[in-house]
Amino acid sequence: MLQNIRVVLVNTSHPGNIGGTARAMKNMGLSRLVLVDPLDFPSSEAVARASGATDVLEAAQVVNTLEEALVGCTVVLGTSARDRRIPWPLLDPRECATTSLEHVQAGGEVALVFGREYAGLTNEELQRCHFHVHIPANPEFSSLNLATAVQVLAYEVRMAWLAAQGQPTKMSKVEAAVPLDAQPVTADELELFYGHLESTLVAIGFLDPQHPRHLMSRLRRLYGRADVSKLEMNILRGILTETQKAVRGEPHKRREDDV
Amino acid sequence: MLQNIRVVLVNTSHPGNIGGTARAMKNMGLSRLVLVDPLDFPSSEAVARASGATDVLEAAQVVNTLEEALVGCTVVLGTSARDRRIPWPLLDPRECATTSLEHVQAGGEVALVFGREYAGLTNEELQRCHFHVHIPANPEFSSLNLATAVQVLAYEVRMAWLAAQGQPTKMSKVEAAVPLDAQPVTADELELFYGHLESTLVAIGFLDPQHPRHLMSRLRRLYGRADVSKLEMNILRGILTETQKAVRGEPHKRREDDV
Repeated sequence: MLQNIRVVLVNTSHPGNIGGTARAMKNMGLSRLVLVDPLDFPSSEAVARASGATDVLEAAQVVNTLEEALVGCTVVLGTSARDRRIPWPLLDPRECATTSLEHVQAGGEVALVFGREYAGLTNEELQRCHFHVHIPANPEFSSLNLATAVQVLAYEVRMAWLAAQGQPTKMSKVEAAVPLDAQPVTADELELFYGHLESTLVAIGFLDPQHPRHLMSRLRRLYGRADVSKLEMNILRGILTETQKAVRGEPHKRREDDV
Repeated sequence: MLQNIRVVLVNTSHPGNIGGTARAMKNMGLSRLVLVDPLDFPSSEAVARASGATDVLEAAQVVNTLEEALVGCTVVLGTSARDRRIPWPLLDPRECATTSLEHVQAGGEVALVFGREYAGLTNEELQRCHFHVHIPANPEFSSLNLATAVQVLAYEVRMAWLAAQGQPTKMSKVEAAVPLDAQPVTADELELFYGHLESTLVAIGFLDPQHPRHLMSRLRRLYGRADVSKLEMNILRGILTETQKAVRGEPHKRREDDV
């Protein structure tokens, strides 16, 4: 189950932190590491700090964009140290672990995303996340070392996982509660929807591409927290397709497929 | 209260770990560090890894024996990675934090004791501890980095302390997660939206009033669980209004109100 929880590091500067992350992950039973455009990798310093977790480093996937790193994920949790202008559903590390466990128990895949050493994640990257996770640090000294922050979240995941292992009735309850039509949509499917939504809003004249304001980010927040299922996504995409046709004046055809 | 919880490092080899410990402590609001016979301290490497927590390093007390480090403590908790021949009261990090908080709330002083990088604490040292604390790591790869282990225990102490203070573990939830723009929509407003949505879906030809199937009930389930805010509702209603105009071929006007 833990293999369906991936750790994603974005633009890491120091290879030592990549090694420290691999060690912290393996200590807590996590194995899947994805590196988005790391500055210096592979690196002997990463191997040294991994202190034996070289298997995690060797299996690490290196990609160019956050989008690639999130393919297949049903829930994306991004660490955030700062207050944001646009508020977002915010979890503490313990709630992050519970949410992650629920998703993998329901057959989903989870990404825990960590930003740059000094700058964290950009606002755009944070908007790709369904939830933001904040480690409740001393407000006067709140920036944790990257590998240490990974350790805290991975530790909470392990605590939640151990608790779940000890209570099998709880797990089956979660499984039973997830209906067939509620297979969670993946992050990449959600991105395709946002693209489709945006072009449709432009087509009906609701969104001015010259002055987009916060419209798309507000809609991302709404749909991001709604846990959209695959079936619901099909409905939403169908509505957008028919809207675009109707705006172009094409004759609409009644839907024949059952919803 | 947190100033009465001290972190004791025994015979640390790598000054980087002392610096990392200082940073982790300050991140979590702890300030009192005691070093028992460190191999290399003070050290520029410790300062570098402290990353700004130099005040904790500078105030660190250096002593020759564990006994001196524990003067004044009412409870001593020692980290232990291994099973021991002599069974001892064993706590997980969360129980360690609760116990520590109870002691300082009762006016006591607490020591969290961490052993050597490779060998941990000796049996003799462990017998000085009232409790042993075990971080529930992967049994096949159980040795955490020293500063990282300090981080896990300090994090749990902070979580327990925030709970005891009555403080949220998240950045003030009221301000951050429930913004002014997130006033929940009422049930009757939601009903008006569903009516508007339904007529729009008919207008674009997506919904056949003669054969509605389960479409509206599925959309009700989706939006019903999304906890739509008043501001989001305004956006959704705006989209429906513009869609209907576009379908009727009316010229659309750009929205002027800020979203």
